[in-house]
Amino acid sequence: MRNIKLTIEYDGTNYNGWQTQEDKNTIQDTVESALKVLTNEETKLVGASRTDSGVHALGQVANFMTSSNISVEKYPNALNSVLPKDIVIKKAEDVSENFHSRYDSKGKTYRYVILNSKYPSALNRNFSYFYPYYLDVKAMQEACEYIIGTHDFSAFKASGGSSKTSIRTVHKAEIIKKSENIYFYITGDGFLYNMVRIIIGTLLEVGRGKIRPKDMEYIILSRDRKRAGKTAPAHGLYLMEVLY
Amino acid sequence: MRNIKLTIEYDGTNYNGWQTQEDKNTIQDTVESALKVLTNEETKLVGASRTDSGVHALGQVANFMTSSNISVEKYPNALNSVLPKDIVIKKAEDVSENFHSRYDSKGKTYRYVILNSKYPSALNRNFSYFYPYYLDVKAMQEACEYIIGTHDFSAFKASGGSSKTSIRTVHKAEIIKKSENIYFYITGDGFLYNMVRIIIGTLLEVGRGKIRPKDMEYIILSRDRKRAGKTAPAHGLYLMEVLY
Repeated sequence: MRNIKLTIEYDGTNYNGWQTQEDKNTIQDTVESALKVLTNEETKLVGASRTDSGVHALGQVANFMTSSNISVEKYPNALNSVLPKDIVIKKAEDVSENFHSRYDSKGKTYRYVILNSKYPSALNRNFSYFYPYYLDVKAMQEACEYIIGTHDFSAFKASGGSSKTSIRTVHKAEIIKKSENIYFYITGDGFLYNMVRIIIGTLLEVGRGKIRPKDMEYIILSRDRKRAGKTAPAHGLYLMEVLY
Repeated sequence: MRNIKLTIEYDGTNYNGWQTQEDKNTIQDTVESALKVLTNEETKLVGASRTDSGVHALGQVANFMTSSNISVEKYPNALNSVLPKDIVIKKAEDVSENFHSRYDSKGKTYRYVILNSKYPSALNRNFSYFYPYYLDVKAMQEACEYIIGTHDFSAFKASGGSSKTSIRTVHKAEIIKKSENIYFYITGDGFLYNMVRIIIGTLLEVGRGKIRPKDMEYIILSRDRKRAGKTAPAHGLYLMEVLY
């Protein structure tokens, strides 16, 4: 048996997230169906991240076992010709039989995009969160500093996750403003359920001056979900890269 | 009667272009319907450019006459709340009764986006033309120089246009490469039917080395549509700005 690692880009708008769910249209199911057309096998894909409904990916990673002997260079074009255009295989690699895209991941980078303008965008309506209020970007940048490091992130965890511990290490968290877009990049060893979107909801409160940058520290220490901000909508979020 | 000028952004993917056509879903019709909800009048919009099916706009301009006394500042939010999310009013201004968005236009700027990469993009599939072959960007830039100026552009005109003359003045034509995207910007006093898309088709032939940059000059002089390249697809094209 061979183990093949895929790197996948997708527009999450029209899917119920990555992971297979009964009677739902998911990205995992769609790629598995394409693999079946190609290999004539029932294939089980293991995804590195279970992205939610509406979340996008530029670098999702998934692996599968196959006895097919199609050469790995042929996979991207062959799968892309079968897949709908909102899912694109960017890379396929042969990996060792032990490789597991989720367990072996050393970290992930996510991006969140906020459109901070007077009117929404027709072209980017599914690709950024339209937020028409004044935001103090400097205060948001200051608040990011408190996120970096190893913390118990219970305050930024939605119920429904399956993690054993709420302790995570964030290596990088930064806010970059480019004209009307505000980009948030975060890299960490792992993320709790909805963690990035709740951090964004909290950073928006900082940006609006409802809470101070330093409050980020107290919110983390409180481990109380009610002290953090709202969960920002899914369509501003992108899984950028999975690190190994 | 008042005359109101609107600046409009739209994602052309799901429309049969700007202009009203029987039994078709057009941007003009959609905005006119929203105006009717707002003003309770049958309104006729005059658009500056009749963008084709699939073409996008960041700065389409259209005007309409109304006896409504709704203040102009209220139009964008009021219309946007009625419009589908792929059409957004960015600005509304009171203009003189004589203003005509098409006849008074002094020029327009269009952009064309080519994705020059090995694999397509899931996120930008409707917003750039995926072209996976090697392109000599320098040669394309050189070819642009021949387009600038006042010429008879018959070689770059599709049949079906209604223009009396094929002479147009191009003020600016440039190619900019940013990582995997190639952007073409063109500003002129006016454009023939499919002119920008045929120019792109011809520049792609230059980029692939099938014709020389200098051939652009001979193609223009020939006034022969058959000597120019194919019509590039609509979804890479954006109406950026209408000049007055």
